[in-house]
Amino acid sequence: MDVLIDADTVRSPELRHEVPAAILDPFLYGEREGNAFAAVSALDAANIAKARPELRQVDVMSELGLMELIAGGMGRAEALLEVRARACEVWGITEAAVPPTFPLATARYLEARGITLHVDGERFAARRRRKNAAELEGIKRATRAAEHGLRAAREALREGLTCEELRTIVRQAVEPHAALGEFTVATGPDTATGHGSSSGPISAGQPVIVDLWPQDRATATFSDIARTFVVREPDPEIARWHGLVQAVLEDALEQVRPGIEGKQLYARACDRFEAEGFHTQRKPGKQLMEGFPTALGHGVGLEVHEDPGLGRSGTELLPGDVITLEPFLCRPGFGGVQIEEIVLVTENGAELLSDHPRSL
Amino acid sequence: MDVLIDADTVRSPELRHEVPAAILDPFLYGEREGNAFAAVSALDAANIAKARPELRQVDVMSELGLMELIAGGMGRAEALLEVRARACEVWGITEAAVPPTFPLATARYLEARGITLHVDGERFAARRRRKNAAELEGIKRATRAAEHGLRAAREALREGLTCEELRTIVRQAVEPHAALGEFTVATGPDTATGHGSSSGPISAGQPVIVDLWPQDRATATFSDIARTFVVREPDPEIARWHGLVQAVLEDALEQVRPGIEGKQLYARACDRFEAEGFHTQRKPGKQLMEGFPTALGHGVGLEVHEDPGLGRSGTELLPGDVITLEPFLCRPGFGGVQIEEIVLVTENGAELLSDHPRSL
Repeated sequence: MDVLIDADTVRSPELRHEVPAAILDPFLYGEREGNAFAAVSALDAANIAKARPELRQVDVMSELGLMELIAGGMGRAEALLEVRARACEVWGITEAAVPPTFPLATARYLEARGITLHVDGERFAARRRRKNAAELEGIKRATRAAEHGLRAAREALREGLTCEELRTIVRQAVEPHAALGEFTVATGPDTATGHGSSSGPISAGQPVIVDLWPQDRATATFSDIARTFVVREPDPEIARWHGLVQAVLEDALEQVRPGIEGKQLYARACDRFEAEGFHTQRKPGKQLMEGFPTALGHGVGLEVHEDPGLGRSGTELLPGDVITLEPFLCRPGFGGVQIEEIVLVTENGAELLSDHPRSL
Repeated sequence: MDVLIDADTVRSPELRHEVPAAILDPFLYGEREGNAFAAVSALDAANIAKARPELRQVDVMSELGLMELIAGGMGRAEALLEVRARACEVWGITEAAVPPTFPLATARYLEARGITLHVDGERFAARRRRKNAAELEGIKRATRAAEHGLRAAREALREGLTCEELRTIVRQAVEPHAALGEFTVATGPDTATGHGSSSGPISAGQPVIVDLWPQDRATATFSDIARTFVVREPDPEIARWHGLVQAVLEDALEQVRPGIEGKQLYARACDRFEAEGFHTQRKPGKQLMEGFPTALGHGVGLEVHEDPGLGRSGTELLPGDVITLEPFLCRPGFGGVQIEEIVLVTENGAELLSDHPRSL
């Protein structure tokens, strides 16, 4: 089956995997009979050639007539669609698999020209699951960067430090090593809400969750790790939760290997949490964010969250998968505890990529 | 006309404009009869509520049955499409305008359920053209950050400094103030190739182009400015080009006002460059990147490149537009010169947002 992707490589993990360079403006990429093609602007030609030397480029202006279309009065948006249709003609593509995010505008234009498109999410997700050497190195660099952030947080934490100050400290520790967009620094009841951050001073005894997903600059791959800290003595319930979360994490780490299903790992974690009286997605409580309300983890690569999932529908792990394990316990209005590690699935088992103490 | 957007707010400028918070996982957003809706995960509910308090949230698990679908054996990808269809039912949306990038997988699923989708790029581009106060503040912060980078480059430049060292200096100057993904540090013949970067030492007399498009962290808006520097005495041709580029820029700055068309500004720049014997897109030479081979500029906001364009198809400028002006001259194998400024179109004229010397 031929392939088409219409995207930029900064926002599309599918295309970044095929063209490993940062190309800001969207372009049409195609594959037919073992050859890869791209219809590109002269501005981006050199960068694309460096990243993927054997890819055959066709220039949208000199070869596909973009300028003539615009000079003839066609609007820029339509002209950009027309050169995409012309590129498919040049490449001989009449039927192709496309990612689920393929833009509807392009799809309608190509379909009107007789090209059949098949949305095939699994095909593109599968391509990205076995990380290539460059991507794996990128994930490792991003993981080192996240560890710098956790270390800085651990060293800086004291009663009265504000979350805003802690965010700055973490950012300054991470950014020399990787890009850091959003990240979580939550304390008190905010630690129970998931993806939120807190403001104001940190109190002794309260959980502080620092969750970092930096992005390697060279490869655009991510890492994703988290820790829960407490200044001085933890609340006894937080301490108990932390022990349980750590036990579930260690059990999962021992289980990770090719062939085991994400939903099996999730079920083991639920068994343990439910046995201790906690709600899970299998046995929900009255409130949404209560007990262990999330999946156990997710794939990581050119997206922070990608296949394979480690929730109720999680499928078989494969060698080359990079996944997180992130057991979480919470109660609304009270707080939460999370430890998140990142793991490579190897031919025989698993390799823990992160290296930072798990203690409170 | 009702509206649907299916995206995350980090990659979709259309959705970030409506929900000004960083939401990493895609969700369905709808508008009907003056009300805004979102079908979201509990993990993101608090952040979305903070960013857009009056938006009506519906929870994909407790209200739309995501977990039951998965427990019943549906794959996660299909279950996520099914809750989107259910959300449209709950909101009463049967026909909607969608952005050109609306994901094909969602479009097909909704259409199979009788929902009619109209791709309407202009509607969503128009929404983002008049920047709101928060976005404009963000663009100004990103511009200050870029100026820090240009200043650091100017101060550090000397013969023998490598492009890699200069990149590090620029990054360290920008990142305390804004996020910096890709950026251009090119010298010698590489300055003629557009979006490329160079490696190795910088020679005296050669052009050095530093082009920075940092992103404000709070609002995700961009800036985009560039300068050409020369260590010691410039090559005489580079010096002449620089004077001409600066004259074209200053002329364009005087012309910017509501009502003038992007293509008029582009034509004025071409008139001047062609009168001096340079090729343009109107009068192309034999090589693609020769003379003034690009547009004069582009809109900037939640995307680095957005409407309005300032090329051959550029339409009328409106108050609230933020645009770049970036005349460029180049010859393959020799080099290039560019100066790029960022400008707000006001009710009566224009306000230059960038503030950095233009000299070589």
